[in-house]
Amino acid sequence: MPAPQEFLNYIDANANSFIQRLSDAVAIPSISGDWAHRNDVLAMADWLNGQLQQLGVETQLSDLGRHSMDGHDLPLPPAILGRIGNDANKKTVLIYGHFDVQPANKSDGWDTEPFTLVIDEKTGRLIGRGSSDDKGPILGWLNVLQYHHENKVPLPVNLVFCFEGMEESGSEGLDELVERESKKGGYFDGVDCVCISDNYWLNTRTPALTYGLRGLSYYKVTVSGPARDLHSGVFGRTVHEPMTDLIALLNTLVGPDGNILVPGVDEMVPPADEEEKAIYAKLDYSISDIEQSAGAAIALSSDKVAVLMGRMREPSLSIHGIEGAFSGAGAKTVIPAKVSGKFSIRLVPPQTPALVDPLVIEHLEKEFAKLNTKNTLKIENLHGGKPWVADHRHWNYEAAKRATRAVYNQDPDLTREGGSIPVTLTFAESLGVNVCLLPMGRGDDGAHSTNEKLDRSNFIEGSKLLGSYLYEIADIAK
Amino acid sequence: MPAPQEFLNYIDANANSFIQRLSDAVAIPSISGDWAHRNDVLAMADWLNGQLQQLGVETQLSDLGRHSMDGHDLPLPPAILGRIGNDANKKTVLIYGHFDVQPANKSDGWDTEPFTLVIDEKTGRLIGRGSSDDKGPILGWLNVLQYHHENKVPLPVNLVFCFEGMEESGSEGLDELVERESKKGGYFDGVDCVCISDNYWLNTRTPALTYGLRGLSYYKVTVSGPARDLHSGVFGRTVHEPMTDLIALLNTLVGPDGNILVPGVDEMVPPADEEEKAIYAKLDYSISDIEQSAGAAIALSSDKVAVLMGRMREPSLSIHGIEGAFSGAGAKTVIPAKVSGKFSIRLVPPQTPALVDPLVIEHLEKEFAKLNTKNTLKIENLHGGKPWVADHRHWNYEAAKRATRAVYNQDPDLTREGGSIPVTLTFAESLGVNVCLLPMGRGDDGAHSTNEKLDRSNFIEGSKLLGSYLYEIADIAK
Repeated sequence: MPAPQEFLNYIDANANSFIQRLSDAVAIPSISGDWAHRNDVLAMADWLNGQLQQLGVETQLSDLGRHSMDGHDLPLPPAILGRIGNDANKKTVLIYGHFDVQPANKSDGWDTEPFTLVIDEKTGRLIGRGSSDDKGPILGWLNVLQYHHENKVPLPVNLVFCFEGMEESGSEGLDELVERESKKGGYFDGVDCVCISDNYWLNTRTPALTYGLRGLSYYKVTVSGPARDLHSGVFGRTVHEPMTDLIALLNTLVGPDGNILVPGVDEMVPPADEEEKAIYAKLDYSISDIEQSAGAAIALSSDKVAVLMGRMREPSLSIHGIEGAFSGAGAKTVIPAKVSGKFSIRLVPPQTPALVDPLVIEHLEKEFAKLNTKNTLKIENLHGGKPWVADHRHWNYEAAKRATRAVYNQDPDLTREGGSIPVTLTFAESLGVNVCLLPMGRGDDGAHSTNEKLDRSNFIEGSKLLGSYLYEIADIAK
Repeated sequence: MPAPQEFLNYIDANANSFIQRLSDAVAIPSISGDWAHRNDVLAMADWLNGQLQQLGVETQLSDLGRHSMDGHDLPLPPAILGRIGNDANKKTVLIYGHFDVQPANKSDGWDTEPFTLVIDEKTGRLIGRGSSDDKGPILGWLNVLQYHHENKVPLPVNLVFCFEGMEESGSEGLDELVERESKKGGYFDGVDCVCISDNYWLNTRTPALTYGLRGLSYYKVTVSGPARDLHSGVFGRTVHEPMTDLIALLNTLVGPDGNILVPGVDEMVPPADEEEKAIYAKLDYSISDIEQSAGAAIALSSDKVAVLMGRMREPSLSIHGIEGAFSGAGAKTVIPAKVSGKFSIRLVPPQTPALVDPLVIEHLEKEFAKLNTKNTLKIENLHGGKPWVADHRHWNYEAAKRATRAVYNQDPDLTREGGSIPVTLTFAESLGVNVCLLPMGRGDDGAHSTNEKLDRSNFIEGSKLLGSYLYEIADIAK
């Protein structure tokens, strides 16, 4: 049961008014990370809540309490919970999105006012903060709702919404809400699958479905020696220097080829079989795409499958920097007294912080002992999160694949992302159902950057995709 | 010919007026590194010039031109050149000192006003900025001059003075002056030896003579990769990371035991023979002195001779920090695009920057090639200076040793310093004569720190020492 032609036509016919609605949404500078904009985030919640209600969704605002930001005591933006349809014969799909945005000032390097949606007729770009992350996708759902509401066509599935206003600031309060409402009798009880549209295609050409995210474990390893910084003229070759020891430790973590040298970490991940490798071989993404994105020809390999697997299904270890050492310009002849190396490991299943941390700590302690130094070592884990991988053969993905073929006339790229979207794991674990990441925007949208945009065709075809996905679910789950 | 008893008595009898004169000198905040205090440095030059003239020294102010500091065009303080005595049968001794001081504010943590000399009757400390570095020693020479001037006693040697006001700010203009005036017919032509009192005893107990200083070569090694900082989620295990490569390079430089791993650097220095080792064994300085000074039990060895040789007669390599990496508090998951490691090597004869730099560059390039990375390497030498060692059996040192025994009733520690006093090398090379570093203050004077002090006994006995040294020269050179 593909989406009815009337639906597809309706989306095309109303494209301009949909873009106007996106313009209204972008005009509210709902920056969650700036206390001075908190009222704008609250105004955005009101606006979105009103839109949902007008389109027949029963909503409630879930108070998430207060928090402190830069010395200001502030109300957290409420989460918007919504529901439309309650037919026991239909699947119930939970839709997540966020209505807050990253900060933006024209002076950051924007070509246009960031909170005024600009339609570039030549390129078809809809330019403005939040256009792609994540107001465009949320409004895609509104577009789907509008067709059914105006035409009194019943939705093919029951929908439950969870929209938050703190995603760009750590999703404060959301985990507790999701865990609570996922329990028996909670708001999310009975949800059959989850769809999140908050990431991007690999490239600018090919729609994608994302079925994995890496986790993270972030470490701070501190070597301390003298009571204060020392002069290298007076103390050079006299005392154990903390920097020498720290550099030696950091050098035992990862090879120049990206291989993780901490025993047991790489080994924890089973190798890809031929079927999995075929997924990467099929992806519409090349070494030159990667190198263009990095701005230099520095890919670890010329083998596309190897490089894509390195990003998507293998752990990685990056050394981010050193706290406490001389970091300015010029030449300072200091022996720093206490230096902390910062590094993190991106995790993939079956790795978890709980499994990897002991390996890292044991390794560092062993290597430190080898140095035979009189300095002291301290290892801290600053934060961590588990990786997530979904079954991409599940009917939730099958529906998304069929919808993609119907709207875009091509197979989607099946991707895993190197970074994290923590709420994904929260939904997957709390609800115990399949979660599908169904991106609307392209890889070059510049979500957290200047001149963020959503292509007009991604907004309009993307709205068709979201609606079609619901019809395909209804069809498969018949 | 030890110093006449009348001279020694005169110094004791006039101690209080000498301390008053030191108080007058400290009261002028002649901070060369702060443009707002430049007039104070000029006032200090006037004051010192007046003192010298009153004590019978013919002087001239040598204009060193102008320079720019923090956007201000300023006159450089003049160097004061002075001469007293012109007897062809006497040795001519050049005395160097500097009348500028380090910055100081009470709010830095001083217990007293830094530019008010405070006499602590309990401890005998004369507390104030410049008391030890270097106004006390300069005034020691004035005390010697005063005895001879007031009592119409001819000095045992001819004296030539060179006092500058930019030592704490890189001695701008001085090298050129010294080189020019050292030539035939120049102001310093005919000088037989140099005495500089601008360093410190090893400890708080034992007078010292210093016959060596380490040189320095400072390096910046930069690894560049991507065009901009990357997100470790997206690019981890996808590209060659500059931090990984830089850490690997820095790890090839020095061992945790202080041994320099750059081939040829340590090997360039001949080992100490038994006679030289005996000098270090004799020094009144222990491992616990070093560890107390560092604030932790982190000496590289429990063998005092090994540790002191590490500081004084061996090269050392210290890693100071990294520019361009994440250096703040907290956890940031960045892959820095361009990172620069800063390290320096303290040099000892026969090492020079010209001899060591090629070894360092060749080594880094070789190690970088081994990494097989696509990132790029750049090696820069930010600055350098040659080491200096004098013949401590020369009559200049012999005179200083005899004077020390006469005043302090003990042999001086024969020391080499781990840091640099660049003007020492300039005098040694320009004049081609022996230079002796004859410190007045103790190892705990806190020259560049808060609560700088000179002990009353070091000022008074030190004045006797300087005078006695001149008599001993006259005696030896008879």
